Amino acid sequence: MVSTKKADELVFLPLGGSGEIGMNFNAYGFGPAHDRKWIIVDCGVLFGREASTPGVDLIMPDIRFLAERRDDVLGIIATHGHEDHIGAIAPLWPMLKCPVYATPFTARLIEGKLEEAGLSSSLRVREVPVGGTMKLGPFSIEFVSITHSILEPNLLAIRTPLGLIAHTGDWKLDPDPVLGEVTDRAAIEKLGDEGVLALVCDSTNALVSGHTGSEGKVRESLEALIGTLKGRIAVTAFASNLARLDSIARAARKHGRRIALVGRSMHKMVEAARDCGYLKDFPPVMDAVEAHDYPAHKLLYLCTGSQGEPRAALARIAEGNHPDVRLAKGDAVIFSSRIIPGNELPIYELHNKLSALGVEVLTEQDHFVHVSGHPARGELEQMYRWTRPRIAIPVHGELRHMAEHARLAKSLQVPQALVPANGQLYRLAPGPAELIDEVPAGRIHMDGRVLVAEGEGLAKSRRALAHAGFIAITLVLDHKGRRAAPPAILTEGMPQPVKDAVRRAVDDTLERNRKAQPDDLMENVRRAARRAASEAWGKKPVTRISMVEV
Amino acid sequence: MVSTKKADELVFLPLGGSGEIGMNFNAYGFGPAHDRKWIIVDCGVLFGREASTPGVDLIMPDIRFLAERRDDVLGIIATHGHEDHIGAIAPLWPMLKCPVYATPFTARLIEGKLEEAGLSSSLRVREVPVGGTMKLGPFSIEFVSITHSILEPNLLAIRTPLGLIAHTGDWKLDPDPVLGEVTDRAAIEKLGDEGVLALVCDSTNALVSGHTGSEGKVRESLEALIGTLKGRIAVTAFASNLARLDSIARAARKHGRRIALVGRSMHKMVEAARDCGYLKDFPPVMDAVEAHDYPAHKLLYLCTGSQGEPRAALARIAEGNHPDVRLAKGDAVIFSSRIIPGNELPIYELHNKLSALGVEVLTEQDHFVHVSGHPARGELEQMYRWTRPRIAIPVHGELRHMAEHARLAKSLQVPQALVPANGQLYRLAPGPAELIDEVPAGRIHMDGRVLVAEGEGLAKSRRALAHAGFIAITLVLDHKGRRAAPPAILTEGMPQPVKDAVRRAVDDTLERNRKAQPDDLMENVRRAARRAASEAWGKKPVTRISMVEV
Repeated sequence: MVSTKKADELVFLPLGGSGEIGMNFNAYGFGPAHDRKWIIVDCGVLFGREASTPGVDLIMPDIRFLAERRDDVLGIIATHGHEDHIGAIAPLWPMLKCPVYATPFTARLIEGKLEEAGLSSSLRVREVPVGGTMKLGPFSIEFVSITHSILEPNLLAIRTPLGLIAHTGDWKLDPDPVLGEVTDRAAIEKLGDEGVLALVCDSTNALVSGHTGSEGKVRESLEALIGTLKGRIAVTAFASNLARLDSIARAARKHGRRIALVGRSMHKMVEAARDCGYLKDFPPVMDAVEAHDYPAHKLLYLCTGSQGEPRAALARIAEGNHPDVRLAKGDAVIFSSRIIPGNELPIYELHNKLSALGVEVLTEQDHFVHVSGHPARGELEQMYRWTRPRIAIPVHGELRHMAEHARLAKSLQVPQALVPANGQLYRLAPGPAELIDEVPAGRIHMDGRVLVAEGEGLAKSRRALAHAGFIAITLVLDHKGRRAAPPAILTEGMPQPVKDAVRRAVDDTLERNRKAQPDDLMENVRRAARRAASEAWGKKPVTRISMVEV
Repeated sequence: MVSTKKADELVFLPLGGSGEIGMNFNAYGFGPAHDRKWIIVDCGVLFGREASTPGVDLIMPDIRFLAERRDDVLGIIATHGHEDHIGAIAPLWPMLKCPVYATPFTARLIEGKLEEAGLSSSLRVREVPVGGTMKLGPFSIEFVSITHSILEPNLLAIRTPLGLIAHTGDWKLDPDPVLGEVTDRAAIEKLGDEGVLALVCDSTNALVSGHTGSEGKVRESLEALIGTLKGRIAVTAFASNLARLDSIARAARKHGRRIALVGRSMHKMVEAARDCGYLKDFPPVMDAVEAHDYPAHKLLYLCTGSQGEPRAALARIAEGNHPDVRLAKGDAVIFSSRIIPGNELPIYELHNKLSALGVEVLTEQDHFVHVSGHPARGELEQMYRWTRPRIAIPVHGELRHMAEHARLAKSLQVPQALVPANGQLYRLAPGPAELIDEVPAGRIHMDGRVLVAEGEGLAKSRRALAHAGFIAITLVLDHKGRRAAPPAILTEGMPQPVKDAVRRAVDDTLERNRKAQPDDLMENVRRAARRAASEAWGKKPVTRISMVEV
């Protein structure tokens, strides 16, 4: 089918989350090419890494394509409240200034972030009830309850005049999520009966066979495990996993232990859940100060810091410098969480520091204390059977997960499976799905407090500094280009013998270039310094030179 | 028992490997405190990491305590040829200048490294036959064959007048190692009968229950898997695991495929093994250029780069820029290796790049293609039953592994279990084991080509550069301390608005400090620049200032 400029089209545009687990950002457009209306589903962040993006806290999608069309962007809809789905709303919203929609608990979390960003007077999140529907221009959106590792995860059924899209968000099929709604299986099956054009679906666990376990089973296992421990217990888990916190709290109560919350996000999440009417039967909590007077065997700390974050509660406890919590021989820490890839070394370091205190460390490697929130292959198969889409669109995954997800979909006889990259604009209807354009896409770094395009190379230039340090040379010349004073050489990150070699090379070069033009002189000195470092050290520092005329 | 200065003592001193998996370095001393003779068992490296030690290739133990006594160091004995056991011999040997002993294959690998370091004329490794014995002063050392993931791993039975030490090196109990000797169980049981004072033992897998699998089983599985694949196959494995290479080569031959070796260390290791009389039945190999003419289904590449090393063969193949190897849709890559903790992200990136080429990626997560080379708890229990030591000394582990290993030993009724830290000097006999001293210990970085003590903080200072960049300011003053020219400001790694803010702050400060003394002026300008960056950016760059007088 040939695209005509005037006919309505339904298009799909991922700007984040295709090629990475995180930074989810998908847009759907409807209308003819010259007059398309857009909705955005999720607007999340990735977290920066010291090795690859040093000094960068958050990574966000480059949304300039939509920012340039912001009058046609009808709204941002959040499927659920995890950072990789809502974390970029506050930083990027000023470029879009469109309404934001979410169910109550998710809305509460977004508003907390807007408040921190000083945006709460500009933007109120519009609440959609759990199981509710809303309309945005040509899009009619139904929130279908599903299960995940947070309260109020939603599959979005997005109806358009050209077909129905089922956008799963993050999900698993948990028969016993212990808190919040169960999966609305009937509603999803009805979508299948109605006819699903495209299933846009979580790929995180597409390499994992079988079924992800249930929170209900983790609850039982945690209750048994906590019963076997005698001293103080600290449990660390993702604070947003309220079902897990509830399970831990109930296990504590069952074994005569009071709960103390340690870490800001524990307090924040429990409060947000309560404000939204959840956790009605949650045991009373103390803060860490009140817990001082409690005997060890009557106490359980719920701590932030399961990923080894250096400023979180558990890291400070392990360092022995938390103001209110001390753990020692006879105590135990349960990591009721998985290791997010890339966090292995800081987490193992935390394990080691706790071991050094004599604390027993229990993790999912040796005890059943965690389940994933994403669908393994068995659950993906179930979802495809329910929805029977014409097009499978894997998202929320690295390329390998998406490719495997697409293979799985084809093996289930889905007629078409795409493996979209960020910035690829696909027409989903009319006609078979087709790549019709590539729009600007990429990553934006929150570098300190400044937004910087990844392509500007700031983080990359700092990696070069981390590798081989910096040489800054200032030459002082008179107005005839003659040396007026010795050069100033400032270096950082280099061994003394290398510094000495650089100093000698600069002096020698100045000596040999008495008659050179200033520009040549500068370039010769810069090169000589770099070469001298390289010869003495085997590494080439970043070398900059400036000239001052007196 | 009170230590007397004159009586003979047997002491144990770990300088590496206690608290980390890698950088193994243990010393045993015998004699009265004032006249002790030392032997060193293993002298290995850790590999640097971009996040924690940017620009550092290798990390080695600080051995100054033994270097100061080098006349009393009788020799270095290598248990086996892995980098974390022999990699520091060449860089550290000039500080010790003692003989080095190893079995033939290990000696061959050490000599290769001495040659690279230009040391082969100064030092010849003294070969000890497999199963052989040697004597060094009061120490009599027997090499007992055991199994691991390299040729010729040895348990050392170290006999002294005050007792027998069983030093395991790295090991597992593999009933079918497919290449090299099987574990000399009879010899180990005989040590137990003779009476083992201390078992100094590998802790790597002390958190893993059961038994580590056998190379023989991996061989069967790889043979079956390779038979199912149709296109080109590339297998990546640790080049030092010759048994694995042999299994892969045999599977290839069985399925009518010729082997091509890709990557320098593959060639080196196969050659070393052949020189030592192994791999007699290894199929003929090609290099990658010869393989050009071979049809896809008749070819198997054995590649370096299983850990995602950016310059290794597999990374270059995945980037599409290897000069001789191209993989595409229909081809497959088998990762016959584990992920060394900390390498997750580069390895996943490699998986993704291969997926992008359409190449199928098979790993130990989805297929049985790898077994560990270290003893799980079942094997540790077996070793304790055989040797029945009076003292258990866990080594080769992070603190958590060592602590768990010690708990296991106590549960097996070993009377004493130590958890030594690097630099702790333990008396093992006479009397119960006791910490008697702490000697200087720590880490030395191979930073570029220069050895630098970790404590000097070079890598740490470069991490600060990676976080927030660098500001170098040079003030040009006349001999009365008045400004003679505008300041030179060189920055790196900072966004433009931050640079602008720094420039303004420097100018303002100079303006306001016209009458300040040069030292005060410099300090005021430095602080103002740093503060301005912090206010504009939320991060504090490393800021250095110099002054030139004209």
